[in-house]
Amino acid sequence: MSTPVMRVTYHLTCRPGEDPDDKARGIALEQSAELPSRCIPEHVYDDVVPHIDELTALDDGRHRLVLAFPEAITGLEPTQLINNLFGNISLKSGIRLSDIEWTPALLEALGGPRYGTAGIREMLGAGERPLSSTALKPLGLDTSTLAGYCEDFARGGIDLIKDDHGLCNQATSPYLERLHACQEAVQRANAETGGNSLYLPNVTGPRWELERRLDAAQEAGCKAVLICPFLTGIDALIWARERYDLALMAHPAFAGAVSGAEHGIDPALLLGELTRLFGADMVVYTNAEGRFPTYDQSLCDRINDRLRRPLGSIRPALPTPGGGVDADRAPYWAERYGPDVILLIGGSLYAQGDRVAAARRLQDVVEGR
Amino acid sequence: MSTPVMRVTYHLTCRPGEDPDDKARGIALEQSAELPSRCIPEHVYDDVVPHIDELTALDDGRHRLVLAFPEAITGLEPTQLINNLFGNISLKSGIRLSDIEWTPALLEALGGPRYGTAGIREMLGAGERPLSSTALKPLGLDTSTLAGYCEDFARGGIDLIKDDHGLCNQATSPYLERLHACQEAVQRANAETGGNSLYLPNVTGPRWELERRLDAAQEAGCKAVLICPFLTGIDALIWARERYDLALMAHPAFAGAVSGAEHGIDPALLLGELTRLFGADMVVYTNAEGRFPTYDQSLCDRINDRLRRPLGSIRPALPTPGGGVDADRAPYWAERYGPDVILLIGGSLYAQGDRVAAARRLQDVVEGR
Repeated sequence: MSTPVMRVTYHLTCRPGEDPDDKARGIALEQSAELPSRCIPEHVYDDVVPHIDELTALDDGRHRLVLAFPEAITGLEPTQLINNLFGNISLKSGIRLSDIEWTPALLEALGGPRYGTAGIREMLGAGERPLSSTALKPLGLDTSTLAGYCEDFARGGIDLIKDDHGLCNQATSPYLERLHACQEAVQRANAETGGNSLYLPNVTGPRWELERRLDAAQEAGCKAVLICPFLTGIDALIWARERYDLALMAHPAFAGAVSGAEHGIDPALLLGELTRLFGADMVVYTNAEGRFPTYDQSLCDRINDRLRRPLGSIRPALPTPGGGVDADRAPYWAERYGPDVILLIGGSLYAQGDRVAAARRLQDVVEGR
Repeated sequence: MSTPVMRVTYHLTCRPGEDPDDKARGIALEQSAELPSRCIPEHVYDDVVPHIDELTALDDGRHRLVLAFPEAITGLEPTQLINNLFGNISLKSGIRLSDIEWTPALLEALGGPRYGTAGIREMLGAGERPLSSTALKPLGLDTSTLAGYCEDFARGGIDLIKDDHGLCNQATSPYLERLHACQEAVQRANAETGGNSLYLPNVTGPRWELERRLDAAQEAGCKAVLICPFLTGIDALIWARERYDLALMAHPAFAGAVSGAEHGIDPALLLGELTRLFGADMVVYTNAEGRFPTYDQSLCDRINDRLRRPLGSIRPALPTPGGGVDADRAPYWAERYGPDVILLIGGSLYAQGDRVAAARRLQDVVEGR
């Protein structure tokens, strides 16, 4: 058969008595024909059922399985792709999706970031340096307070000032009111300082609201937005990239639910590669040393690597480590992660009290002053 | 504070040295203010941070935590609700979401099934009996073959004949072509037999396609569709319920990814309650004794219970056990699960060779002949 194949790697953990060969064959059938072999018409078998390219016992007791999926069964559709990769087998156990070798047509169908690292830098007029980001919070504050924070952070020069991902359309600060107040606050500060700070509203919302929020953000002059693709459906990234001129910062809320250590999707693949391929220009993840100990240094390094590495004609995306990064450690992370990174620092800017001064200190670090 | 609260139960598994009180407080902050306590302005603290109503050590070493979430922080939005329940803490470990006591306003905002059990029965002209369902497969077959299968199953009287959830818009059977051929095949068979079989196309697709597919299904005269809410984003259920007259059968593809035993969402809550509340009339799950051993009998019983139990003014939804149910065991399941169930039988109907006869045998069981 001459159709291109997508090679997909799983790591299998077998229960006592479970046979790795049976498990591998079961996965191949479950993710394609969903019928016992004998019920699959012979003339379609090879066209739809993934071939087992490799099944190797590993030193840690697991097995590495490589399946060659005929590209055609994905229909080159993002939702069906996820279904082929981990749909029905999600309901089994001991299967971890860990790597994918893409076909050219799949890379083209997914498309990757519209702006990518170079585009975001250009948007900000920033040179080859780490970028800075912070979040407006907590929810419960009124719009004028949040807009005041926004203005302070912009005066201090923060590159990307985003809504906390928990701000949506609560009565305390409705989306449209906040969008306009914060966008104006940042523009006012930019006019004073000559800076290029951007305000990123959180557009995450149910299907009917997501569209309205993106429309409004673009109309208000925003150049980028925050979105939680694991709450909206990850295909929302592709959809938003195609319909709007807005750069997309993806937030990992709910992503951890699908990233079990033995069963699920390797977070480096999920956040570092799938999120990039689906169109995120910037990908937030929870950094080592912060509030999320499941994300250790090696995982963070792997996410960075996947976001940045060459992948056909797909643009690189910007790693955005956050989740409890201490402002005092910013110089360390700027050095360790190099220039292609966004340092997202929330709580520890607030903890300093004077927001403008705290923002300036962070900006001194990323601008190497 | 007088705002209504949503009481949410988590089961915590602490790592060695991890303190359950700290963990509980961490969850409350992470799922709301996302700031250290000292940085949260006093006047909003009680309005946004969930109160710890209960933290109890269990016999199995875990702890039960009950948090009282102020309803207002959800903004009554489905995406933010999921974010509040399990957004950032998904990126931690040892936290299992297991129960929710809803507020009246949240129940109203989510809304539940449009048709529910009684509505589906009425649509089918079926009395107080189990309903039958099967799937068209495997992918790779051409449209006329699939439509032929459809006609056979309808001649045999199957109530609900659905696309396999892996059929989308592949070149071998494009969606629109299949929709029209299968819908006509079922109508032709119904005209001959006087039956009321329904064809359910799989409308799952990326955002821009989902809408086109639902439009086309409604226009073609379908009364119900299959959708994979864990691929499209679960809010797609609410959106589809509001925009279309179509009944919704939810397929659990990818649902297992978020249902880890120690960390994730209890599948009984996810499939039995959230999916129902978001608007599914029929909920497919993988039945005990089938190909999915992680779904044992007790879990299946709990899913059934949650789909059927009284829940404010929310209609009950129909449990749809599938995933390897043997046709020979249909009488057992019809007896065990009672009349409010859809028996979804795929592979073992195909294995019988004569599809019309196999369908009739199943129909004899559910119609009590």
